[in-house]
Amino acid sequence: MKSALERAAEKPLFKKIKHFLIGMPIATKFASGEKLSKKVALSTFSSDALSSIAYATEEIMIILQKTNITYVGFTALWLTTPISWAICTLMLLVVWSYYQTIHAYPNGGGSYLVAKENLGKYPGLIAGASLLIDYILTVSVSVTAASLAIISFAPQLHPYLTLICIFLVFILTVMNLRGTKDSGLLFAIPTYTFIVMIGVLIIDGFFTPSQHFPDLIQKTQDANWNTLSMFLVLRAFSSGCCALTGIEAIANGVPEFKDPKTENASKTLLMMAAILISMFGSVSYLATKFHIHPMPLETEGYQTVLSMIALKVFGESFGYYALQIATAGILFSAANTAYADFPRLSSIMARDGYLPRVLSNIGDRLVFQNGIILLSSIATLIIIYYKGNTSSIVPLYAVGVFISYTLSQLGMVVRFWNKQRNQLSLLVNFSGGLVTGIVVGVILITKFSIGAWVVPLVILVFIFVFNKIHNHYVYQDFVLSINPEDETPTIKKNTVLLLVPKINKGIVSTIAYARATTRDCRALHVVLDQEDLNNVKRDWEKFGAKLPLVILDSPYRSLIDPVIEYIDQILLEDPEMIITVIVPQAVVKHAWQNLLHSNAAVRLKMSLASRRNVVITNVRYFID
Amino acid sequence: MKSALERAAEKPLFKKIKHFLIGMPIATKFASGEKLSKKVALSTFSSDALSSIAYATEEIMIILQKTNITYVGFTALWLTTPISWAICTLMLLVVWSYYQTIHAYPNGGGSYLVAKENLGKYPGLIAGASLLIDYILTVSVSVTAASLAIISFAPQLHPYLTLICIFLVFILTVMNLRGTKDSGLLFAIPTYTFIVMIGVLIIDGFFTPSQHFPDLIQKTQDANWNTLSMFLVLRAFSSGCCALTGIEAIANGVPEFKDPKTENASKTLLMMAAILISMFGSVSYLATKFHIHPMPLETEGYQTVLSMIALKVFGESFGYYALQIATAGILFSAANTAYADFPRLSSIMARDGYLPRVLSNIGDRLVFQNGIILLSSIATLIIIYYKGNTSSIVPLYAVGVFISYTLSQLGMVVRFWNKQRNQLSLLVNFSGGLVTGIVVGVILITKFSIGAWVVPLVILVFIFVFNKIHNHYVYQDFVLSINPEDETPTIKKNTVLLLVPKINKGIVSTIAYARATTRDCRALHVVLDQEDLNNVKRDWEKFGAKLPLVILDSPYRSLIDPVIEYIDQILLEDPEMIITVIVPQAVVKHAWQNLLHSNAAVRLKMSLASRRNVVITNVRYFID
Repeated sequence: MKSALERAAEKPLFKKIKHFLIGMPIATKFASGEKLSKKVALSTFSSDALSSIAYATEEIMIILQKTNITYVGFTALWLTTPISWAICTLMLLVVWSYYQTIHAYPNGGGSYLVAKENLGKYPGLIAGASLLIDYILTVSVSVTAASLAIISFAPQLHPYLTLICIFLVFILTVMNLRGTKDSGLLFAIPTYTFIVMIGVLIIDGFFTPSQHFPDLIQKTQDANWNTLSMFLVLRAFSSGCCALTGIEAIANGVPEFKDPKTENASKTLLMMAAILISMFGSVSYLATKFHIHPMPLETEGYQTVLSMIALKVFGESFGYYALQIATAGILFSAANTAYADFPRLSSIMARDGYLPRVLSNIGDRLVFQNGIILLSSIATLIIIYYKGNTSSIVPLYAVGVFISYTLSQLGMVVRFWNKQRNQLSLLVNFSGGLVTGIVVGVILITKFSIGAWVVPLVILVFIFVFNKIHNHYVYQDFVLSINPEDETPTIKKNTVLLLVPKINKGIVSTIAYARATTRDCRALHVVLDQEDLNNVKRDWEKFGAKLPLVILDSPYRSLIDPVIEYIDQILLEDPEMIITVIVPQAVVKHAWQNLLHSNAAVRLKMSLASRRNVVITNVRYFID
Repeated sequence: MKSALERAAEKPLFKKIKHFLIGMPIATKFASGEKLSKKVALSTFSSDALSSIAYATEEIMIILQKTNITYVGFTALWLTTPISWAICTLMLLVVWSYYQTIHAYPNGGGSYLVAKENLGKYPGLIAGASLLIDYILTVSVSVTAASLAIISFAPQLHPYLTLICIFLVFILTVMNLRGTKDSGLLFAIPTYTFIVMIGVLIIDGFFTPSQHFPDLIQKTQDANWNTLSMFLVLRAFSSGCCALTGIEAIANGVPEFKDPKTENASKTLLMMAAILISMFGSVSYLATKFHIHPMPLETEGYQTVLSMIALKVFGESFGYYALQIATAGILFSAANTAYADFPRLSSIMARDGYLPRVLSNIGDRLVFQNGIILLSSIATLIIIYYKGNTSSIVPLYAVGVFISYTLSQLGMVVRFWNKQRNQLSLLVNFSGGLVTGIVVGVILITKFSIGAWVVPLVILVFIFVFNKIHNHYVYQDFVLSINPEDETPTIKKNTVLLLVPKINKGIVSTIAYARATTRDCRALHVVLDQEDLNNVKRDWEKFGAKLPLVILDSPYRSLIDPVIEYIDQILLEDPEMIITVIVPQAVVKHAWQNLLHSNAAVRLKMSLASRRNVVITNVRYFID
């Protein structure tokens, strides 16, 4: 037989499952300060940016394909390559700007921090809100794109698309709740495989002949450049801008690099940029060269554009499958970076008092578990709402990123201005901020009607919420602050009221508790049933431990009202009085059995919630 | 300026709305013992039974109309009259049986009581379950039928059918929560108007010529009586049996009659039966005479059969509108009787320990408010599920009624057998029980596939639940019963633990409370942030009121676990110890602000729920 204490000390089922999935708690002293080498850092921080190669080209083409109108013509798809190269140019500028940010903020220059420090509170909050949205969408977009990569080579999984996405989010959640300190290598494998396989694809692709190419150019000779087609081309450009997401990651992560960290971080940034620009540009070129048409997701046998290119080049060979799996892997890894960024940023903002403080609590596995769970929940809702379709989520994406880019660059401009650094740096950041700002405008205008309007709205809501939360914390600190000159107040008068219904064994144990723990105690009995009254009086003689018993009539048959009136009477006579009400509470074995008990304790608590001098104590007795 | 107490004593909005709708509380001493005269009783107790005239004929015809197959033929509708007359014969037998029940149970002979007393626990529970279901369906059927009567003369309301039903249930709920002691007259008006108008309709109808009648008979000469058509005729008979619902009401209500109550009640029963039988039979005759075809509810300009008969006889005159409004009125009144019956039966069963005790609580308006709310909720769900269509609900109806009739008659048989009363009485109840039992079988068989299977299933579930609840109460009484020889136990050792986070004004007031109200108290501080520790120690010197401060390390950054370990340590050293944990709790102004606080109190309560020697007290401090 186990003692009651042993039974109570057993792990509840919830904890067992939690420890199985997430692992046993880790002590604070094991918090690691491990630093990342350039090679590991490249894979850790660049997977987000590089993974967009998997879908950015397709997003451009989907829009261009929709311009199936005579004056631009079906073959508007040839524009994919020039648009991609324009985006690559933009990328160069952004990378240059961030190169400067890394040197200016060796302890990590996230947009929230840079904007708050240099531009003030509201630009900081806008950047913070934009980034939070961006991280959520990074998870949604990357996870859905990873799932699309999977169903491209395993079309029998197509009907389970949303389920696959949810499963991936679940895996990410569990992994990150466990803590991913030692998982650098795990994510390095798909990232490097992806880089190698895309490299092979590009080289091989250049030498693979295409039948369709000449045909394609000819038809577009008579393209008609009017306003509508310009608008659609700009929209395609906006869609492609999702290729620029994730560039900030390295600037955020400077402190995690090995020394000399600034040096290493900026080299990693340049390396990543070189890979991203060359590969994205080339993949887009191959897509037009092989005359690829993006498929609607509803199509049976749906494949991503990248999968179609790879099939043309590799055929159904080992190389094709390796590329697809690596694609899914790097996208999964990209989603994983948001699992580092979102909880970190929300914990910083929580510590600044703009988000609930629970988001800054470090959990028993040394991770910000509340942020992780929040991120997973919102990303899952978005994935379910959009049924796992990457292209439906992309119009929301990039808006947040570019807003935060713009604010971060403008922050750098102000910083350089104040510190009177050299003019070239200032010019770089200024033109970076200007161009990304223009891109924000372009994205908002061209994609407003297909969902981009949501993002500014959500940012506004976030800022409203941030302010509400901040005001509460500020007010609370003000109200509760103590002065070293203050004295501990003395409570001179207090009384204890013990609520007694019909006397039973549980009530008797409560009487024993009241007698043992309090000095001044009276019992209250509310008369709900005249027939019971005599029994109560008789039992009280025997079991009442000589405590005075007050009988309260209840003309309206309410248990609560007479007690409240009695308490109010005491408080009216003596507003200084502190009253403790002891309410016996039966604890049942199964939750449903609570329906069979009146739970006066809960109702009494609610009714007395607004009376400040009243403390309610539940003394429980167990029925089992 | 109002004092804090005055502000606290103000009525909350919820109470204001409640008192506006339902009225101020009524004191127990005003509980009235007012008795009903025959005239008022007739209208109060017979509206349920009489109201079925409004829909029973139609339900028969709907089934007969579906037998639109060559061998029975389209004109199977002529069978409406013979089937109705067969039901009237059945009614005679049931009424005779209940006539005897009234004399045997002058204090009210509900089926639950009669079956439980004479047949035993399980027949009693089956009868109880059947009646509860019956009352719920009485509300659903009567309210939907009332709404159909309304949309018959106001077809523009047709699209709002379900809404009208829900509104009527809402009115019934509010009326009954107010208490309907003095509403006898209110319900007498539509009942007597209905009786008078149906009387006029019948007399007038007999003399109104019909064009279609000869045509109708001729076609049915060659009806082919095979198994399928017999089955459908029996199903039509089953549908018509809803005319027998409500007969029990008078036997239930004997104690509410004026003296000599048995005499008055049985006379009222006979009067009601005479009216019901003659009117139901005649209305069915008129329906066939005027060659009425029931309309599907989806039809534009839907009218009930009764409305179509009235139009043929009265035209669009005052008489037509008076009848329609009276029909809606008596149906509303019928639903109202279920609002008396359901809460009364459920309070009786709750007192017997078969339903949660809250159902036997008399509310502040002297009504069983919980039963009323439960009844309204379930009836509303049924109405919404069936979209306000009476005919969809009718297959469920009558099963419960006839099961309870059967059990009640069989109970009477056993009673007469034991008491050796005269043989005729025994024979009447026996044949009553036999016939109603057969009807149960017929209804179940013919309507099994269209919904009747639900009822036995629900009865089984109810009985399972009744037993579960009963076992809990029995067990609880056993566990908690006290012996006059018992002594109040003495608690020798108890200690108070005061949980202190960072010190602020709220915590200081909690310290004052702990010092004032307890003898042996130590403070616990869990170290979550090493930097705070020195502040806490310094503040404790100043504000700690000389209480000992225990510092608990938390290697896994949990607030709760170290406290639990500390408590378990104390309990391990001394299992007799009673521990009171005082947890300070910040009370915020708006509910959403709770998200901004850690609410350790709630989590600590849950974690300590299984430890029996622990009492948790929240001492609240207010931020506003």
